[in-house]
Amino acid sequence: MQVAKTINEMRALRKKMQGAVGFVPTMGYLHEGHLTLVRESRAANDNTVVSIFVNPTQFGPAEDFKKYPRNTEGDLAMLAKEGVDVVFMPSSEVMYPVYYSTYVQVRKVTDRLEGASRPGHFEGVATVVAKLFNIVRADHAYFGQKDAQQVIVIKRMVEDLNIDTEIVVVPTVREQDGLAMSSRNVYLSKEERQAALVLYRALVLAQQNWSNGINDTETIRSEMKKLIESEPRAKIDYISIASPDTLEELKEVYQGAVVSLAVRIGKTRLIDNIRLGLSKL
Amino acid sequence: MQVAKTINEMRALRKKMQGAVGFVPTMGYLHEGHLTLVRESRAANDNTVVSIFVNPTQFGPAEDFKKYPRNTEGDLAMLAKEGVDVVFMPSSEVMYPVYYSTYVQVRKVTDRLEGASRPGHFEGVATVVAKLFNIVRADHAYFGQKDAQQVIVIKRMVEDLNIDTEIVVVPTVREQDGLAMSSRNVYLSKEERQAALVLYRALVLAQQNWSNGINDTETIRSEMKKLIESEPRAKIDYISIASPDTLEELKEVYQGAVVSLAVRIGKTRLIDNIRLGLSKL
Repeated sequence: MQVAKTINEMRALRKKMQGAVGFVPTMGYLHEGHLTLVRESRAANDNTVVSIFVNPTQFGPAEDFKKYPRNTEGDLAMLAKEGVDVVFMPSSEVMYPVYYSTYVQVRKVTDRLEGASRPGHFEGVATVVAKLFNIVRADHAYFGQKDAQQVIVIKRMVEDLNIDTEIVVVPTVREQDGLAMSSRNVYLSKEERQAALVLYRALVLAQQNWSNGINDTETIRSEMKKLIESEPRAKIDYISIASPDTLEELKEVYQGAVVSLAVRIGKTRLIDNIRLGLSKL
Repeated sequence: MQVAKTINEMRALRKKMQGAVGFVPTMGYLHEGHLTLVRESRAANDNTVVSIFVNPTQFGPAEDFKKYPRNTEGDLAMLAKEGVDVVFMPSSEVMYPVYYSTYVQVRKVTDRLEGASRPGHFEGVATVVAKLFNIVRADHAYFGQKDAQQVIVIKRMVEDLNIDTEIVVVPTVREQDGLAMSSRNVYLSKEERQAALVLYRALVLAQQNWSNGINDTETIRSEMKKLIESEPRAKIDYISIASPDTLEELKEVYQGAVVSLAVRIGKTRLIDNIRLGLSKL
């Protein structure tokens, strides 16, 4: 496994690759969710590149950029064990030099949900992903369904800007008890970790209600709300039942609709989602 | 010469190319300025691609998108004669389908001059050029110094987004009497065509003053202003003497500084510029 720290190093390693290239962009502090993306890439491509970059531009001023968890040595050991070919690990100065001034905006779909709660977040995401895609020039890039809106934003950007990389979406990986894997789970105390299960339980409830023939979103949403509010440590940021293409809220639910939620557990903000009738729970 | 009208057609032709690829993006209505770019590309590359696309997103609502001059048949004949390999000629619907919502913004350098006079113009330019670069994947792309700020914006974007295409800037091509070639010159009446020479004459005057040892911008600028105001058909939009990297206005002039101006002649807005001590006049 080779590690590239500059863009020129990464480009040089890329030029030597033959056959299909798969790419897994990450912010590090890797868990089983990331490794699942890596395995998908390894299975479908001749070469796999993983990037580790905690991207400052996608964090708001009051967000957790500085304390975002990092574990470079552990990450590299895991990736080596998975058989990754190249890890791209640039510094902020490499990605955003002094005169940096270009930003990619995906409009409309970013007005809602995470975009509304975290102004500038998706501009940061779209910009860094555009840069990484131009540097790595992968045939396939792997993203987790866990970040449902991110997936929609990146697919929109890739199609709009005619980027020649195919986006592959991989189902959310969960702990045994259902909690979606996330680097931010490390922030949770033992009691909060238990309380955090309400996200999963609310999604299971939505799925059950839909399976039982309930298809008006207000009923499904209010049942989810009631369940989450029964947990005193949980504070709802949003509950959304929306179109998988545009993220516009729905009045009537259909198979494939995105049920997503953001909930604060103590100081930690967690998100999760399912595609109704499609996600395995 | 082959003509591609869809992105898939263009990509298929691109895949067949071997060796270096040069690219000349244009809005058509080609003149000797464009053909000079084509010849530079032909001389330095194994393949030359020219795009013809009047990009709606770079025109303001009150600007001349609809009446922008077009001459597809004439353009294609000229390009065939120059030995161009592929012409990419997409429709607006191909470039901006219904759900289109992604835009590229280059900040700071676009706040001034053309960016200030034409809000949204450079966002449209940066976006369409990012798209074209992703579709054509050229080794070299050719732009005229005539659009000085456009060159700076595109260089900035290419560097910031790590696009693997080298920007080659080609000196402005002028008519015998000095008028910079532009598709918009066709709008000028005979009297206006004569009046339009004040742009060139003002630039020559700036160059002379600098050669004579004058290096405070206020003197150079006020002399240019006086000259242009002596032409009753001319109305100054701006006169700028600025850094070639950031376009920030200078107090003292140095070799390579960009002297640029925008002047309305009747209803037609013309721009021109020189790099002090570098441009041939």
